[in-house]
Amino acid sequence: MKKILNSPDSYVDEMLDGLCAAHPEFYAQPEPRVIVRAGGKTPGKVGIVTGGGSGHLPVFTGYVGKGLLDGCAIGNVFASPSAEQMAATMRHADAGAGVLRLYGNYGGDVMNFDMAGEMVEMEDDIASTTVLLADDVASAGPEEAAKRRGVAGMVYAFKIAGAKAEHMASLDEVTAVAQKAADACRSIGMALSPCTVPQAGKPTFEIGETEMEMGMGIHGEPGIWRDELKPADEIVDEMMERLLADMPLGQGDRCSILVNSLGATPPEELYIIYRHAKAVLDGKGVEIVMPLVGRYATSMEMAGATITLCKLDDELEALLKAPCDCAFWRV
Amino acid sequence: MKKILNSPDSYVDEMLDGLCAAHPEFYAQPEPRVIVRAGGKTPGKVGIVTGGGSGHLPVFTGYVGKGLLDGCAIGNVFASPSAEQMAATMRHADAGAGVLRLYGNYGGDVMNFDMAGEMVEMEDDIASTTVLLADDVASAGPEEAAKRRGVAGMVYAFKIAGAKAEHMASLDEVTAVAQKAADACRSIGMALSPCTVPQAGKPTFEIGETEMEMGMGIHGEPGIWRDELKPADEIVDEMMERLLADMPLGQGDRCSILVNSLGATPPEELYIIYRHAKAVLDGKGVEIVMPLVGRYATSMEMAGATITLCKLDDELEALLKAPCDCAFWRV
Repeated sequence: MKKILNSPDSYVDEMLDGLCAAHPEFYAQPEPRVIVRAGGKTPGKVGIVTGGGSGHLPVFTGYVGKGLLDGCAIGNVFASPSAEQMAATMRHADAGAGVLRLYGNYGGDVMNFDMAGEMVEMEDDIASTTVLLADDVASAGPEEAAKRRGVAGMVYAFKIAGAKAEHMASLDEVTAVAQKAADACRSIGMALSPCTVPQAGKPTFEIGETEMEMGMGIHGEPGIWRDELKPADEIVDEMMERLLADMPLGQGDRCSILVNSLGATPPEELYIIYRHAKAVLDGKGVEIVMPLVGRYATSMEMAGATITLCKLDDELEALLKAPCDCAFWRV
Repeated sequence: MKKILNSPDSYVDEMLDGLCAAHPEFYAQPEPRVIVRAGGKTPGKVGIVTGGGSGHLPVFTGYVGKGLLDGCAIGNVFASPSAEQMAATMRHADAGAGVLRLYGNYGGDVMNFDMAGEMVEMEDDIASTTVLLADDVASAGPEEAAKRRGVAGMVYAFKIAGAKAEHMASLDEVTAVAQKAADACRSIGMALSPCTVPQAGKPTFEIGETEMEMGMGIHGEPGIWRDELKPADEIVDEMMERLLADMPLGQGDRCSILVNSLGATPPEELYIIYRHAKAVLDGKGVEIVMPLVGRYATSMEMAGATITLCKLDDELEALLKAPCDCAFWRV
């Protein structure tokens, strides 16, 4: 296992210690595996929390910051945090206006975070809501869209809901716009290589030296097909086709697009992907607003990329362009 | 070769097209392989240009932007741009106050860029100076410091010289502070895996499944030793020891530190490295100013990390903290 670490067991905690030590202006860790904004709470603001397994930086913890999230519960690599951790995160994030739990649609997270919601409602009288991100079109068909996994589209939901909360909107309003953002996103991924979970010590999946997998999930969940690696433009054509089949866009529509590396894939390749994805959207008369290219949602050292489209209306566009600040993203 | 590309021959140009298409507010390409600021020139400001091979994003091209560089000449992957390309870049960057060439100490670049300086002096009457970055302590001993390679320390030099030029300092003043920043930086790297140059189609070097190499260069240049991968803290101890042997720091000294991924190494591991590097500096009473953790100077999908220390005085600190803006770094 080629990783720079001291021990698989200390990986997550040392990572969080380093994160907070490097960026004390952004992140604080009031208790283990709970990250909140260093600047403290804004009384009366809706709190937005997320949570999930480690190994996806900047997702999830990295997006705690002004105009983004208020808190994050962190699990082991690719493993859900506990209900107690999420409950603690919600208590830290509550500033009197309730808390939105905004996270990816994975079974363990849903179970634990629902339980956390009940705990803080009963014990602390904190009102809370849930919005699940389920943007991966490769993980289930449109008739089963509620079963889809949450992937890079969550970045848009964090940004848009975070901006709404910063405007001192109510819990219902923040929840509604978070759901609207979640509904506006479609993602698809392709992978070239696996990553290694430190505590497992072996790759998450095996793939041939010249193969790629279309539609693979960020933890190595099976995709749509696996075959020889294709030229970039062909890969992008298929990804865009599958996204646009699920959420048609045409003349006069506006969208943001996120071309995201799963980790090892360098920005050079992301720009080659962006170049052709833009040509596809240009060809349909779709206006691109605030394109994002980089590492926004990763799986450690996995090679591959995802494309997310976020269809915008005036409200979503204004919130997407509103200021935000964390160690990984500033608007 | 597991890369998302159309053809090795179109890799660099498609990457640059995508970069400019994704970030038209930052980058413009007035002629092939020449990137300049999208906003145009500031009359009377010293121009700062750099250049080098592709495959190191954000280095070199990514750092064209306000408070940073004015132009960049881009070669093929890991290959020097031509003298003509650098001359063209200098012409675009000259705003009447002369041009500083600020780049890494590699033979091909030095030869071509010196020639470019002579060309624009003779043909265009543009005054120019050179500052070479030579921060890699693993590449030559202190008695041969001028032979050292330039690696991630160039990020500090770009930032500091860029801020000075933005203050409308003269060419001599910008050159002097660039040299001062270059002299204040020491870097060392360690690699876990190679990367693949698209046109070569095979890895830049071979390394065993459980091995690491200390002191390896960003193109796979041989390092100090190769052996079994060690725990993170031991790796960091040796890297810091070698850096501090070359540039002692102690009680009352201030420095910035850059913990940089060579590409595939994820931020999780960088924070584990930062955590211990900070402990080493804390133990010596050294004050850390504006630590940087991320991918600042890479070799495509190479796994590994570098540590750079930049010793600061009041002038360097103020310039380091001055505003800058490009697609990869905003202060």
